[in-house]
Amino acid sequence: MKQLMDRIKQDGRVLKENVLKVDSFLTHQVDPELMSDIGKEFAKQYQHRNITKVVTIESSGIAPAAFAGLALGVPVIFARKQKSLTMNQELLTAEVYSFTKQETNTIAISERFLNSEDNVLVIDDFLANGQAALGLIELCQQAGAHVEAIGIVIEKAFQTGRKLLEDKGFEVYSLARIQSLENNHVSFVED
Amino acid sequence: MKQLMDRIKQDGRVLKENVLKVDSFLTHQVDPELMSDIGKEFAKQYQHRNITKVVTIESSGIAPAAFAGLALGVPVIFARKQKSLTMNQELLTAEVYSFTKQETNTIAISERFLNSEDNVLVIDDFLANGQAALGLIELCQQAGAHVEAIGIVIEKAFQTGRKLLEDKGFEVYSLARIQSLENNHVSFVED
Repeated sequence: MKQLMDRIKQDGRVLKENVLKVDSFLTHQVDPELMSDIGKEFAKQYQHRNITKVVTIESSGIAPAAFAGLALGVPVIFARKQKSLTMNQELLTAEVYSFTKQETNTIAISERFLNSEDNVLVIDDFLANGQAALGLIELCQQAGAHVEAIGIVIEKAFQTGRKLLEDKGFEVYSLARIQSLENNHVSFVED
Repeated sequence: MKQLMDRIKQDGRVLKENVLKVDSFLTHQVDPELMSDIGKEFAKQYQHRNITKVVTIESSGIAPAAFAGLALGVPVIFARKQKSLTMNQELLTAEVYSFTKQETNTIAISERFLNSEDNVLVIDDFLANGQAALGLIELCQQAGAHVEAIGIVIEKAFQTGRKLLEDKGFEVYSLARIQSLENNHVSFVED
């Protein structure tokens, strides 16, 4: 998605240890027009795949997922992390390890909103090691739902997430694939 | 907003202690079409008030705020709660006490995204005691920004949040105002 790659080049900040900060338009401040276009891009790819639900995880996944849900005409569910759990019952839960924060979080979705009739598009803002996506897939599978594909806004293609998910048979569709952040420079995977 | 009140009547669940759960369309599963209409409703009210930023708080505020930002044509900033802080610098912070959870959380916004030129519409999913809104106002004021108004999706009008905010001189605009949840029945404030 050229518009997204241009925006990453313009406003992304490369920090130490191969960290890309996109907090001016995605992870803290959000550009709603870009999010709307991102939602439409996901919908263009998956509009004929009978998606019934979009599933994401709080907080940075919510905006792109909400616009994808609007464009696809389906509800969006955001999994909650442990800290914000006020739903005390009827929960499907999975463990997600964060390499960045070196901690394990429980994520959860109410079982009321997913069932075996559902065909899910999982959406997340970043794909790095694939742990968050795996956790979301596990929640869907616990509900008996089918995961049709994983939609990612920004993929760090130099990390192992895509391989991990594809080896398990899942389709991964990323709007921007970053090949390298070396020397403070963002370079993308050539299509 | 009739469409929202109808949806609350249809899908809201009244739990013990005057708790209204709207997790099937707002706080966990999200109805993107309703969120889009909510965004347009906020924009209709504030389109001539020179809003430059929408400010909300993770996680349930993000979807309505994102669609309001789209309709108003301005960026959206979501304040982060302590647990998800990975921004280690340049932070404006405020303390928010939750009567529900009986705990104090630090909320934060990067100072890079708000300044004294900004005219802010604060948006949140619920107004009860007004503590979250007050925290967001404090963050805006630390940045020197002006808070033009507080936009609320669902107001518990039987709690003290509106009075607290109005007594401090802030305008509160709620799309649905709940008068009572007594006897497991949702009744709205008559307009």
